[in-house]
Amino acid sequence: MVKDAIQDGLTAVEAQLRTIVTSDIQLLTDAGLHIITSGGKRVRPQLALLAYLAVGGRQLMDVIPIAAAVEMVHTATLVHDDINDHSLTRRGKITVHAKWGRTFALLAGDYLFTKVYELMAPYGAAYNVIMADACIKLVEGETLQAAAAKAGDMDRETYKTIISRKTASLFEAAARMGAMLGGGDEKTVAALGTYAYNLGLTFQIVDDILDIIGDPEEMGKPAGLDLAQNRGVMMAQNGGGIESTATAVAEAELPDDPIARMMARLRESGAVDIARLQAREMANRARTALDELPDSEARDEMLELVDLVMERNR
Amino acid sequence: MVKDAIQDGLTAVEAQLRTIVTSDIQLLTDAGLHIITSGGKRVRPQLALLAYLAVGGRQLMDVIPIAAAVEMVHTATLVHDDINDHSLTRRGKITVHAKWGRTFALLAGDYLFTKVYELMAPYGAAYNVIMADACIKLVEGETLQAAAAKAGDMDRETYKTIISRKTASLFEAAARMGAMLGGGDEKTVAALGTYAYNLGLTFQIVDDILDIIGDPEEMGKPAGLDLAQNRGVMMAQNGGGIESTATAVAEAELPDDPIARMMARLRESGAVDIARLQAREMANRARTALDELPDSEARDEMLELVDLVMERNR
Repeated sequence: MVKDAIQDGLTAVEAQLRTIVTSDIQLLTDAGLHIITSGGKRVRPQLALLAYLAVGGRQLMDVIPIAAAVEMVHTATLVHDDINDHSLTRRGKITVHAKWGRTFALLAGDYLFTKVYELMAPYGAAYNVIMADACIKLVEGETLQAAAAKAGDMDRETYKTIISRKTASLFEAAARMGAMLGGGDEKTVAALGTYAYNLGLTFQIVDDILDIIGDPEEMGKPAGLDLAQNRGVMMAQNGGGIESTATAVAEAELPDDPIARMMARLRESGAVDIARLQAREMANRARTALDELPDSEARDEMLELVDLVMERNR
Repeated sequence: MVKDAIQDGLTAVEAQLRTIVTSDIQLLTDAGLHIITSGGKRVRPQLALLAYLAVGGRQLMDVIPIAAAVEMVHTATLVHDDINDHSLTRRGKITVHAKWGRTFALLAGDYLFTKVYELMAPYGAAYNVIMADACIKLVEGETLQAAAAKAGDMDRETYKTIISRKTASLFEAAARMGAMLGGGDEKTVAALGTYAYNLGLTFQIVDDILDIIGDPEEMGKPAGLDLAQNRGVMMAQNGGGIESTATAVAEAELPDDPIARMMARLRESGAVDIARLQAREMANRARTALDELPDSEARDEMLELVDLVMERNR
């Protein structure tokens, strides 16, 4: 039954996202719908819905605008990321900036941010303070990542800070806001926040692993893209440092293409295995946080979501 | 005495702006301070402060974060505008994207938007709904402007829509929020909104005129910059259409440089004079809106602000 409720909730989120991007400036509607309908995993809205249900919330439609807003934050950053990364495809579709050009992509991203604000504003101060904080952290994480990539300098601590801010903070905000609106007490809201935060770290580490080893057809984007953009190196150094281990791989076995070479080296270096272990640890922390909650179908779904994030291949 | 209060308020706004951009990501602090300290006219915060005082508000410091937030919205859009316009200077200083590059400028602009949200969130739903609406309109106005410039197609109606959304809406929001926080009744809040909205239209028309006829030294940017970016044509067509009037100017008298030629044509065509008339009409509407308010020092200051906007030369 919770599964059905979540399904209904996600359908309502889709409708909300399509409605909210509508503008009398046709280009903004078109670009908004283009990115919204390109099929994300919707894991952030799911967190808001599940947290709402886990604390006993009974009017699921009340949380839809929050669930849509957290997905919209993510979507807005994708549009701006793709400009900065010169990416031509996203989720198997042409990117907004490749289709409409850089100027309009920048404005479309800004527009989606303002739509987050429109969705959130009616909820009042407590919710907007949480959302504002998550948005700030996200941009800080993206900036730190761009700076580290540019400097070619990424240690384990920096990697952790980046994924914490750019991914885990918004996951945490989604669950906290859902739990608050559902009427959860302070301790339960905090527990659900911890769950979602660690799920976010897990999600991002798995994402970075998939960039190195994933099947391009399943991913909807070329493998090694992040690597090519100097980001995969994060995981490499996080996983023990490519410099020290690369020599273990015989040069003769490596392909000619530099990106393919680096990917092969990473696979051989043990970095991916170390990253997998870290993902597993974060996943366990997420599960443990749920010990604070009474047994419920929603809680079971949240445990299952951890497994899904760990096992995903795209 | 109101003059002193406004001066104190603006000093507090500067402090607030400097504090709020501080991040442990040094680059964001640096870029934020760079643009914040480049000396804007601060007309939007003044509107929030004046509206607060005009309705009898007595705790001016309560409105400072709102006043800072409206300036911050404007500042964030400047950073993104300068990317799209490839502008190298702004207010006589190097632009953020020229100094830090496009990637970081895009992120710095996003960061400033999130800081608007942080400033506003504690005020609750009523204020955030107004601010969200103004931000949406602003981005819509910018998009419409970029689309019209690209198409080289700008009629009078489109020009009015653009300046209404990209400039007047935020002016209106600043005054409305200030008046609400000061305890103004609905009718007075609406009157101050109408005042500020029309002041915004006036401000933008004067701005567009200054781009054509202004002294580059006073402006802190080259004259004809907007024109070069296909925007000055807005005012031209708004003022009667350059195509039909340009023939009145003898070709021989025109300079060789195409931008200089277009500027000369605009000056000669009467477009500037027509735009001046329109600015005067909007200024009168702004003044008339203040008839709803009882006599006060703050009201006098608001009338004086209309004159200052009409007479400014940079």
